[in-house]
Amino acid sequence: MDRTEVTKKIIAAKVAKGLRWSGIAERLGQSKEWSTAACLGQMTFTREQADVARELFDLSDEETAWLQIVPYKGSLPSAVPADPLIYRWYEIVSVYGTTIKELIHEEFGDGIMSAIDFSMDIAREADPKGDRVRVVLSGKFLPYKTY
Amino acid sequence: MDRTEVTKKIIAAKVAKGLRWSGIAERLGQSKEWSTAACLGQMTFTREQADVARELFDLSDEETAWLQIVPYKGSLPSAVPADPLIYRWYEIVSVYGTTIKELIHEEFGDGIMSAIDFSMDIAREADPKGDRVRVVLSGKFLPYKTY
Amino acid sequence: MDRTEVTKKIIAAKVAKGLRWSGIAERLGQSKEWSTAACLGQMTFTREQADVARELFDLSDEETAWLQIVPYKGSLPSAVPADPLIYRWYEIVSVYGTTIKELIHEEFGDGIMSAIDFSMDIAREADPKGDRVRVVLSGKFLPYKTY
Amino acid sequence: MDRTEVTKKIIAAKVAKGLRWSGIAERLGQSKEWSTAACLGQMTFTREQADVARELFDLSDEETAWLQIVPYKGSLPSAVPADPLIYRWYEIVSVYGTTIKELIHEEFGDGIMSAIDFSMDIAREADPKGDRVRVVLSGKFLPYKTY
Amino acid sequence: MDRTEVTKKIIAAKVAKGLRWSGIAERLGQSKEWSTAACLGQMTFTREQADVARELFDLSDEETAWLQIVPYKGSLPSAVPADPLIYRWYEIVSVYGTTIKELIHEEFGDGIMSAIDFSMDIAREADPKGDRVRVVLSGKFLPYKTY
Amino acid sequence: MDRTEVTKKIIAAKVAKGLRWSGIAERLGQSKEWSTAACLGQMTFTREQADVARELFDLSDEETAWLQIVPYKGSLPSAVPADPLIYRWYEIVSVYGTTIKELIHEEFGDGIMSAIDFSMDIAREADPKGDRVRVVLSGKFLPYKTY
Amino acid sequence: MDRTEVTKKIIAAKVAKGLRWSGIAERLGQSKEWSTAACLGQMTFTREQADVARELFDLSDEETAWLQIVPYKGSLPSAVPADPLIYRWYEIVSVYGTTIKELIHEEFGDGIMSAIDFSMDIAREADPKGDRVRVVLSGKFLPYKTY
Amino acid sequence: MDRTEVTKKIIAAKVAKGLRWSGIAERLGQSKEWSTAACLGQMTFTREQADVARELFDLSDEETAWLQIVPYKGSLPSAVPADPLIYRWYEIVSVYGTTIKELIHEEFGDGIMSAIDFSMDIAREADPKGDRVRVVLSGKFLPYKTY
Amino acid sequence: MDRTEVTKKIIAAKVAKGLRWSGIAERLGQSKEWSTAACLGQMTFTREQADVARELFDLSDEETAWLQIVPYKGSLPSAVPADPLIYRWYEIVSVYGTTIKELIHEEFGDGIMSAIDFSMDIAREADPKGDRVRVVLSGKFLPYKTY
Amino acid sequence: MDRTEVTKKIIAAKVAKGLRWSGIAERLGQSKEWSTAACLGQMTFTREQADVARELFDLSDEETAWLQIVPYKGSLPSAVPADPLIYRWYEIVSVYGTTIKELIHEEFGDGIMSAIDFSMDIAREADPKGDRVRVVLSGKFLPYKTY
Repeated sequence: MDRTEVTKKIIAAKVAKGLRWSGIAERLGQSKEWSTAACLGQMTFTREQADVARELFDLSDEETAWLQIVPYKGSLPSAVPADPLIYRWYEIVSVYGTTIKELIHEEFGDGIMSAIDFSMDIAREADPKGDRVRVVLSGKFLPYKTY
Repeated sequence: MDRTEVTKKIIAAKVAKGLRWSGIAERLGQSKEWSTAACLGQMTFTREQADVARELFDLSDEETAWLQIVPYKGSLPSAVPADPLIYRWYEIVSVYGTTIKELIHEEFGDGIMSAIDFSMDIAREADPKGDRVRVVLSGKFLPYKTY
Repeated sequence: MDRTEVTKKIIAAKVAKGLRWSGIAERLGQSKEWSTAACLGQMTFTREQADVARELFDLSDEETAWLQIVPYKGSLPSAVPADPLIYRWYEIVSVYGTTIKELIHEEFGDGIMSAIDFSMDIAREADPKGDRVRVVLSGKFLPYKTY
Repeated sequence: MDRTEVTKKIIAAKVAKGLRWSGIAERLGQSKEWSTAACLGQMTFTREQADVARELFDLSDEETAWLQIVPYKGSLPSAVPADPLIYRWYEIVSVYGTTIKELIHEEFGDGIMSAIDFSMDIAREADPKGDRVRVVLSGKFLPYKTY
Repeated sequence: MDRTEVTKKIIAAKVAKGLRWSGIAERLGQSKEWSTAACLGQMTFTREQADVARELFDLSDEETAWLQIVPYKGSLPSAVPADPLIYRWYEIVSVYGTTIKELIHEEFGDGIMSAIDFSMDIAREADPKGDRVRVVLSGKFLPYKTY
Repeated sequence: MDRTEVTKKIIAAKVAKGLRWSGIAERLGQSKEWSTAACLGQMTFTREQADVARELFDLSDEETAWLQIVPYKGSLPSAVPADPLIYRWYEIVSVYGTTIKELIHEEFGDGIMSAIDFSMDIAREADPKGDRVRVVLSGKFLPYKTY
Repeated sequence: MDRTEVTKKIIAAKVAKGLRWSGIAERLGQSKEWSTAACLGQMTFTREQADVARELFDLSDEETAWLQIVPYKGSLPSAVPADPLIYRWYEIVSVYGTTIKELIHEEFGDGIMSAIDFSMDIAREADPKGDRVRVVLSGKFLPYKTY
Repeated sequence: MDRTEVTKKIIAAKVAKGLRWSGIAERLGQSKEWSTAACLGQMTFTREQADVARELFDLSDEETAWLQIVPYKGSLPSAVPADPLIYRWYEIVSVYGTTIKELIHEEFGDGIMSAIDFSMDIAREADPKGDRVRVVLSGKFLPYKTY
Repeated sequence: MDRTEVTKKIIAAKVAKGLRWSGIAERLGQSKEWSTAACLGQMTFTREQADVARELFDLSDEETAWLQIVPYKGSLPSAVPADPLIYRWYEIVSVYGTTIKELIHEEFGDGIMSAIDFSMDIAREADPKGDRVRVVLSGKFLPYKTY
Repeated sequence: MDRTEVTKKIIAAKVAKGLRWSGIAERLGQSKEWSTAACLGQMTFTREQADVARELFDLSDEETAWLQIVPYKGSLPSAVPADPLIYRWYEIVSVYGTTIKELIHEEFGDGIMSAIDFSMDIAREADPKGDRVRVVLSGKFLPYKTY
C-alpha cells in the first residue's frame, strides 16, 4: 500500500457517498483548497485531520497512518497536462510566464514567489456576460541573497 | 525579421533607457500585465498602441508593423521551465492542478476557466512576516455542452 | 475503480453485444459524436444519460456514478499518436497549423477557435473517385481582450 | 538558401505590403487555404503560381525556383504546439481522437481519412451568441486491404 | 479485455503449439506478411478469418469478436525502437529518409507513398557471400492536389 | 565549414542548375539511391567521385575535401519525422516492425538484416488503379552467435 | 506469459539458490558474458541450452519454450540509464563517441563495428593502485559499400 | 569564442592539411585515443600540449588558451545517437548493460567501473572472415562504501 | 519478486510500526543517510545488516536475500523530479551546476567529485530567522589522466 | 544583446586575462560561490558589483546594465546534464533524492529546503587516500502550512 492507493480509495468513497469538497473541508476545519489538495495526496494530515478523514471515507488504520506521512507530491501524469482545464493553467504559465517574472522582479527585485508559503482561493465571480472563475494566489516573496 | 527580433529589440531598449513596465503600461493606457505580455511578444498591438511603442523603443516602420501582427504565442524555452520563479508557477499547476480541477467542476460543472477571456493582476501584499506576492486571476467559465 | 475502468467495460460490452455508436447515440438522445466521446471517457453524463448507459452496458451503481463525474480528459497514449487514422489528424495540425492560425486571425483578429464551445459532425461524402470523410468542426471564436 | 528562408521573406513582404491571404489566393487562382499553406512553405508551386508569387513578394530567381521544389513539410516548432490557437486543434485531436477513429471505422471499416487527397475550408459562421469558426475537412477514405 | 490481451494470447498459443507464421498464413489464406501483422494486433480480421484464428489459437467468443474490431495500431514500445533488428529499419529511415523523399518526388512530383494501400514481401535471397533479406515494399503514390 | 554546409551548397546548386538526381547519379557512375544519399551528406565520396561532384556543383577545394570525410550520419531533424512522405516510412516501421522481426527470425533465426551491407532500389510500378512506388531493400542477414 | 516473466523467474531462482553467473555459464557451456545476457532475456537459447536452464532454474515447459524464441532485445528502462554502473558506459559513449568514430574510420574507412558479430570479455585486472575492470570488445568491421 | 569553435577549427584544419589522428597523437606524445578525444573538445591540454596543437592547427593565442580550460564534456547531439557507428555502441550498452552490471558486481561487489580513471585502446584485429575492431577498455573499480 | 517490492514492504512496515530512520540507522550501526538510502533500495546490505533488517521489518528469507543483491539504482520516477523538496535539489544543480564545475576545476584541475566514494550528512542548523537544513557532501576528487 | 552574450564575454575575458574565480570574488567582495554563479549569468549584480565587473572584464555600458537585470536562470543545456562532473550531482539527486526527502521530513516535517535562501561552500578536504571535495549546502527550511 502507498499514498496513491489511499487517494484512489478517498476519491472512490467520495463518489460512492456523494460528498462535496466544501463539506469535506468543513469537517476538516480547513479551506476547501487545502482540504482538496490533501485528499488528492498532495498535503500531509495531522493526526486529528486523519481521524476525520478516516471517518469520512471509512479508512483502515494503515490508510489513516499513510495520510500522516509526507507524500511524494505532483499530481500530473505528464509534463504537459492533457486535460483541457488543467492545460489552460499550463498555458497561462506558458504565455504569461515571462510577464509574471518581469513584474515580480520590477516590484520586489530578484527572488521568487513561494509555492510553499502559499495559499489559494477559488471563487465564483458573478458576471452578466457569463460568470467567471476568480482565483487569488498568495505566496511569500523570497529574495535571493548575496553571500 | 520576425516578432521575436522585435521583442529582443524592445527588451534591449528598455534596459538601455532604464524604463519600467509600469511606466510603459501608463503610456500604452493598459494594465501593466497586458502591456508587459504585449511587449514580450504575446499580445497584438492596435495601430495606436504600436505607435506609442515605436516612440518608446525607437522602432522602425517594419518593427512597428510586426507589433500589429498576431504573434505565435508561448514564452517558455522548454516544456518544464528552468527559471526558479517561473518554475514555482509550474509547480503550482503540478501540485494543485487536480485540486483546481475538482473545485471548479464542483462549483460550475464540466468546463474550463478561459485563458483567453482572462485577466491577471499582480500586486504587493504587505505582511509583517515578509511581504507577499498576490496574484488575482480572472477567467470566464466556459461550459462543455452536449449536442 | 476509476473512469478508465468504466470506459473499458463500456467498450467490452459494446463488442460483446455488437452495438453500434449510432444506435447508442439514438438511445442517449445526442449526436453520435458527443455520445461516442462520452462513452470513451471524455464527457460528463447527466443522471438521465447515465441511466441509459447503465441499461445499455449493464453497469453497476458505482460505475453509473462515475459517468456523472467530470473525467480527466485526453484520449491519446502518447504526445504524437501512433495509430495511422489519428496520426493523419495530427499531421493536419502539423502541416496546416500555421495556415489555420493565419486565416482565423485574418477573419477574426487575435483570439482562438474554442474547443469547448465546440461541435463536430462526421459524415460520408459520396464521390465517384472514392467516397470521402467529411468532417465539420464548429467552434465559437473567442477574442483576446486588452485590459 | 532554403525554403524556410523564402517563407520568412514572403511573410515579411506580406507584412510590409499589407497584403491579405484572401487577396493572395485570388491572384494565385486557388483557395485561400491552399494558398496560405503554400506560402507558409507546406505546398509546391507550379511554375505559373511561382511567377505570381515572385511578383507579389518581389522574389529573386533563386527564391522563385525554391517555391517549385517539394518542401520538407511540418509547420510546428514542437511536438505539442504552444500557441493557444493551434493548441486547441491539438486538443481536439487529443480529446476526440478515439471518437473520430471509432466513427470513421463504424461507417467505412478499417482504413484512414487521407491527409493528402484532402481539402479544407475555413469560414465565419454568424451566430447571435457570438460568431463561430466553421471548418470543413474533406479527405478521401483509404481502406486497408488484405493481401 | 482488449486487443492487446488477445495478441498476447495468440503469441503464447503459437509458442505453446510450435506453430509457424507461414503455416498460420496458409490457414488464413493470406500472405505471411498480412497474417503476421494481423495476429500481432495491427490488422482487422473478417468473420471468416477470425473463425480460423479461433480454431488455431483456441480463442473464446469474446476474443474472436475482438479480432474483428479495428485495433489501435502501432507496435513499438518507444519512439526509437530498442530491438536491434527493428532499429536497423529505423536507421534506414534516418539515413535514407531524405533520399527516399527526393527520389519519389523526382519521379512522381509532390505526394507520398501510401502506407495504407500498401503491401510487403519478405524473402530470402541466396548469396554466396552470405544470404540476404530481400524486402519488396509496394505503396500507391498519392499526389497532393491544389484546390 | 562542415559537411552540413557542403550539403546545403549542393542542394542549392542542384536547384539553381535544375539538375536531376538520376543525371547526377549517371555522372557519378553509381545508382541514383547511393548518389542521392551521398549528396545529401550520408555517404563518403572517393576522390574520383568528389572530383565529379566538384564540377557538377562548383565546389571549392575545401568543400571537395569534406566530401571524402566520413560524415556523422542521420538525416532527420526529429526522432519522429514530421514530413508526411518520410513519416509514412516511420509508420511502416511502427505498424509492421514486429511483423518484420517475426518473419526474419522465422526464416533465418536470431540476427538482423544489415543496414550497412545494404542496397535500395526505388522505381515506378505502373498500375491502372494508380501508379505505385516499388522499393526493394536488400540487406545481408547477420546472425547473432554464441561465444 | 512472455520472455520478461521468464527473465524475472530466472533472476529470482538465481537469488533463491545462490547461484553465480560463472557457474551458470559453465553449465551452459558458453562464456559468462553470453550466458548472462541470455539469462537476462537478450539472447536466444538452443533446445539444449534451454534444457540446461530448465534444470538450473526449475522452469516449466512453457518457460523453457520461451527461451528458444527470439526476444525483443534492449535491457534499459530509460533512454539515458539511471544506474551509476551502467551510466558510466553511457558516459563513455557520450564523451568518447566521436573519438571512437574518428579512429575506426581512420583505420578502416566508412563503416561500423558490428554489435551482432560481436563478443565481449570482462575480467579483473590486478593493479597495486586498486584493481581495474578490463573489458575487451571485439566486433567485425562492416564497410559501407557503393552500389 | 568558446571551446566548440576551437574544435571546429581543429577539424577543419585537419581536413585541409590532410592530417591523421595517429600522427597528431605522436606529436602530442599521447595515445591516439586520448589525443583524438582532446582535439574533439573532451579533454584538457597542458600548456605544452596546447603549444603543439597551436602549431599543428595554426591556432591563435586565444584558441590556444581555450584548449587549457576544462571543457563541458559530452560529444553527442542527441540522447540516442543517430550515427550508425556510434549507435552500435549505444546498442551494446542497451543490450549488454544489465549483463555488464551483473558480471562486475559478481566479481567486485557493489561499485562501478570508473569512466574517469579510464583508458581505451582501439586496434585492428586481423581475421580471415573479415577484420575486426578490437577495443580494450580499462577502468578502475570504485566500490560503494558504507558510512 | 524484486528489490522494488522489498522496498515497498520496508516502507509499509516502517509506517505500520511507526519507526524512525534514525532508530533504524542505530540498529544497522550505520549513518542515517546510508541506512535510509539502503532501505529505499539504493545500497547493498551485508548479511549482518540484512539480518537486522529482517527483524526490523519482518522480512521473509527471500526478501532478506534480495537486500544483499546489488540493486538497479536511481530513485526518481522522472528525469526532472516533480516533488518540490527533491526538485529544489535539481534546481541547485541547474542553477549552480556550472559554478560547481568551475570552482572544482579551479581548485583541482580536470576531473570529478566522486558520487561513489562519497558520503552525506544532513543536520538541523538552528537559526533565529528560521532553522536551516545543513547538508555536507564529501566526495573524493578523481582526476582525468592523460594516457 | 542579452545576458547570455554578456556571460560569454565574461568567460572569454577571464580566459584571455588568466583571471581566477577566487580573485574575482575578492574584487566583488562576495564568496567565490556567489561570484562565480553571478558571472555565469545566474545572479543579479548591484550597481557597485556591476561596476567592478565592468572594470574586470572590460564591459561596455550596455553590458554593465544587463548585469543588473534579473536573468532567466538555469545553466544546463539539457534536462539530464552530459558533463561528467555535473552529472555526478544529478546522480546524487537521483540516487539519494528520496533519502534526502525522508530525512528532512523526519527532522522538520512537511516542507522543503530552500534553494533561494541558500548558500553553498566548496572546499578542498585533505585526505591521505586522496583529497576530497567538501561541499556545504545551507538552505532555510520552509514548512508547508495548512490554511
